[in-house]
Amino acid sequence: MVAVHGHRRKRIVIVGGTAAGPSAAAKAKRVNPDCDVTLFEAGSTISYGVCETPYAIGGTIADEPALISYTPDRLRDEKGVEVRIRHVVEAIDPAHHLLRVRDIDSRRTNDVAYDRLILATGARPKPLGMKGESARNLFHLRSREQTTGILDFLARESPKNAVIIGGGYIGLELADAFRSRGLDVTLIHAHALPLGSTEPECGRAIIDELNRHDVHAVLDARVEALIESGAHRISHVVTNRGTFEADLVMVAIGIEPQTAIARDARIRVGMSGGILTDERQMTSVDDIYAAGDCCEVKSIVTGKPVYLPLATLASRCGWVAGENAAGGKATFKGAVGASAVRVFGLEVAQVGLTLARAEAAGLKVVKETVTTYDRIRLMPGSSRVHLHLVVERQTGRVIGANLYGAAGAVQRANTLSAVIQQRMTVNDVARLDLIYAPPFAPLWDPILVAANQAKKNLRKE
Amino acid sequence: MVAVHGHRRKRIVIVGGTAAGPSAAAKAKRVNPDCDVTLFEAGSTISYGVCETPYAIGGTIADEPALISYTPDRLRDEKGVEVRIRHVVEAIDPAHHLLRVRDIDSRRTNDVAYDRLILATGARPKPLGMKGESARNLFHLRSREQTTGILDFLARESPKNAVIIGGGYIGLELADAFRSRGLDVTLIHAHALPLGSTEPECGRAIIDELNRHDVHAVLDARVEALIESGAHRISHVVTNRGTFEADLVMVAIGIEPQTAIARDARIRVGMSGGILTDERQMTSVDDIYAAGDCCEVKSIVTGKPVYLPLATLASRCGWVAGENAAGGKATFKGAVGASAVRVFGLEVAQVGLTLARAEAAGLKVVKETVTTYDRIRLMPGSSRVHLHLVVERQTGRVIGANLYGAAGAVQRANTLSAVIQQRMTVNDVARLDLIYAPPFAPLWDPILVAANQAKKNLRKE
Repeated sequence: MVAVHGHRRKRIVIVGGTAAGPSAAAKAKRVNPDCDVTLFEAGSTISYGVCETPYAIGGTIADEPALISYTPDRLRDEKGVEVRIRHVVEAIDPAHHLLRVRDIDSRRTNDVAYDRLILATGARPKPLGMKGESARNLFHLRSREQTTGILDFLARESPKNAVIIGGGYIGLELADAFRSRGLDVTLIHAHALPLGSTEPECGRAIIDELNRHDVHAVLDARVEALIESGAHRISHVVTNRGTFEADLVMVAIGIEPQTAIARDARIRVGMSGGILTDERQMTSVDDIYAAGDCCEVKSIVTGKPVYLPLATLASRCGWVAGENAAGGKATFKGAVGASAVRVFGLEVAQVGLTLARAEAAGLKVVKETVTTYDRIRLMPGSSRVHLHLVVERQTGRVIGANLYGAAGAVQRANTLSAVIQQRMTVNDVARLDLIYAPPFAPLWDPILVAANQAKKNLRKE
Repeated sequence: MVAVHGHRRKRIVIVGGTAAGPSAAAKAKRVNPDCDVTLFEAGSTISYGVCETPYAIGGTIADEPALISYTPDRLRDEKGVEVRIRHVVEAIDPAHHLLRVRDIDSRRTNDVAYDRLILATGARPKPLGMKGESARNLFHLRSREQTTGILDFLARESPKNAVIIGGGYIGLELADAFRSRGLDVTLIHAHALPLGSTEPECGRAIIDELNRHDVHAVLDARVEALIESGAHRISHVVTNRGTFEADLVMVAIGIEPQTAIARDARIRVGMSGGILTDERQMTSVDDIYAAGDCCEVKSIVTGKPVYLPLATLASRCGWVAGENAAGGKATFKGAVGASAVRVFGLEVAQVGLTLARAEAAGLKVVKETVTTYDRIRLMPGSSRVHLHLVVERQTGRVIGANLYGAAGAVQRANTLSAVIQQRMTVNDVARLDLIYAPPFAPLWDPILVAANQAKKNLRKE
C-alpha cells in the first residue's frame, strides 16, 4: 500500500467521459483545486450530447460537432482536469487503490493509483445478440463514433428503407429523424404498445401519430433473423410478423449499465445491474464513488433504487460524487424521473410512476384521465392535451403523471414533477394557483381538472 | 325578523353574475339542492368571459357571443339557479336579512329576503375623472355591453387612430388588438415602465416589443384633457408629453372593487377597498359571504390580504362561498397570484411578489436574474427566456418570479407557483427533477439555473 504523505496531492481518478464523468471531474477540481483530477475515456470523444444525436441524424441539428461541449484540451485548460482519451480502464484493485489502464494507441497497460475513484462508465445499447449484428449497415446509437457512422452511411449510400428495432425513446426519435430525411421507415417493437414507460392510452396516441406520418409500425413482433446479402450487409429483417427489406438497420432496444469492472471489484449492483450508491454517491467499496447511467438512483416516490438513465441526473449525481470525492459534503436526495420525447407532432412527457409501475411496486392507486384544450378552445391554434394522473388511494398523494398532445405537455409535467417531489396530495394540487390567459392556458388547467376529479373519486370510495 | 320554520327552503341570494356569482350559485345548488338560489345581475349578460374580450376586439376570437358561458335560461335549466338580469341590488339590510332590488325595465323596487347572501359585485374600470369621458368614441372594457360597443364602433366608423390610456394588462392587450386591426396605436402610460406588477427589466422588454410593432408608447405621461370635437366625440388627448389625435380612446387605467352596497351595510373592506373575508369567504357581517373581484384574498406569501382580481380566483372563491352558504365547509387557503399577458410576440408571466413589492411588504430579499434558451440553442426555433427569481434572504424561500420571452414563460411560472405555494427554498428548487429533451427544454432549465445561482449568492453573504 502506498504511504500517504502530508504533502502529496490527493489523486482523484474518474472513469468515463460522457456526462457524469466531466461533471464530477470539474466539480472535484472546483471544490478542491489542490487535488489532481484525471479522467479516462475509452472512446475518442468526451462530453458528448448523446440525447441530441437523433436530431443530428435527422438533420434538425446541422452542426453535429457542436454536440461536443468540451474537448479534452478545453476540460484541461478551463477546469484543470487531465483527460486521457482512448484509455480503457480494465480492472480496479480496491485493496491497493490501483487501476489497470490500457492505452489503445500504444497498446501499453499501466497501473494507476487513486485516492478516490469515481465510476462514470455509463451505459451501452443492449445488443440484439443475433448473427449479423456487426453488419456495416446495422447501427446502435450511443457514442459519437456511432453518430458519425450513421451520418456517413446516409451521405454515402443514400439508403431508401430504414428498419428500426425498438419502440422506446430512441427508436421513436429515430423514426422521426429518418422520415424527415425521406426514408421509408419500419419500426419493429416487441410489445403491443410503444414507449412502455407511459400509460397505454399514450402508446395508442403514438401509434396513431406514427401512422399519420407513414411509419410502418410492426407491433408485438420478435426479430428472428437478420438476412445478410454478400457485402457484410443486411438486406432483410425477419420477424414473426413478416420480413422487411432494409438498407439500414437501427437497433434501439434499450440500454444497460456498463458495470463489468465494478462487478469484478465486488462493488454492489442493484436489480437492474446498475451500481448501488448511497446519497453521497459512494458505492459499497471504500473510496469508490459512482454516478450517471452506470448507477441506480433512489426513487423519491418509492424510496427504492431504480434505473433512470437521464442526462440531468447524470450531471447532478456527477457533481455530488465529484464534490464528495474532493472532500466536500454533498447529497443527492433522489429522483422523480422526468422525461419527454417528441414523436412527429406529438409532445409526450412522463414523470413519476405509471399505473402499471405503481401497482408493480405494490402501491394502491387510482388513475385519473383528463383531456382538455391547451388554451381556451375559442383561441385559434388551441389543441388537445391529455393528462393521466396516478394517485395513491389512501393518502391522495400524486405519484405519477403522463401528458401528451400537440403542445403543453412537457412544461406541465415539470409542474407535476414539483408536485411529486413535494409529496403533494390532490387537495394540495387542486389549490394550485395556475395561470389563466387566453393565448396560453385554459381557465382550468388540466392539472387542476384532474386533481378535482381525483378528489371527488377518492371521496366516493 | 322573519321566523324560520322547519319546512321553509333556505334562500340563498347572489349579487353579481360575471364569474364568482355563477360559480357560487351553481355550487350552492349542487351542495344543497333543497335551497332556493337566486342571482341578481344589473347588466343583461351573465357568465361572460371578460378576460377574452381583448381577443374578440382584435378579431382573434371571431365569435364574440361565444364568450357567454351560460345564458340565464341555461343556468336555470342546468344548475337550478333563478337568474334576474337587469336587476340592481341597491341596498342590504343585514339586520332584517333583506335586499332592496330595482328592476331596471319595470322601474319597480322590491324587498327580497335572504337567509344567506353572497356578494359577487365584481370590479369596474377606474374612471379617468375628466370631462369628455362619456364621449361616444371613448370606451372602457369590462362588460359585454362595452365589448359590443367597441366592436360596433370599429365596424361602423373605421377609426384610424386609437389612443389607449393605461399600460397595464388590458392596455397592452388592446394595443396588440388594435394593431392587428391595422390601427395606429398610441399607448399613454403614467409611469416610466408599463406593467408595474412585473420587474423593471420586463417592463423594458415590453417597451422594445411595442416599438417593434409600431406602437407609439408615451411614458411618464399624465392625461391633462380630452378635446371634444362637435359630435360628442373626442378628437385629441392632451398630455404633458404631447397631444395625440384619436378616432377612438380606450381608458384602461385599472379596475377597482365595486363595494358601495357592502360599505353602506358596514361590511369591512381592506386597504384596496376590496371586501375582507375569512377563509370561508364570510364577511364581517353575519350570513353575508363575498367572492371575486369585489374582494381581497389572503396572499400565501405575506399572509396578508391583497387585491388580486383574477378569473381563476373568482371562480374558486365563488365555489367556497357557495358551498358554505349552502351549509358546507369549504375553505380558500390563499393565493400566490399568477398572471400572464401576451404582448405581440412576447409572453410575460408573473407569480408571487416582485422585488419592489416584497421590499414594500418589509421582506428582505435578493433577486436572481437568468437568461437562457427555452431549449438547447442548437435546435432551430430556440429563443431566449428571461427569469427573475425573488428569494427571501434569511430562509432562502422563493417568493416571486417574473418570466418573459418568445415562449415558455407561462408554464414555467406555473411550476414556480407550486414552488411558492409549497414554501420551497432555493435548495429544494435546485433539486427539482425537470425535463431535458432537445425539442422542448434546455439541459438545465432556467428555474434550476436561477436556484443554483441563488444558493451560491446566499452562501456568499
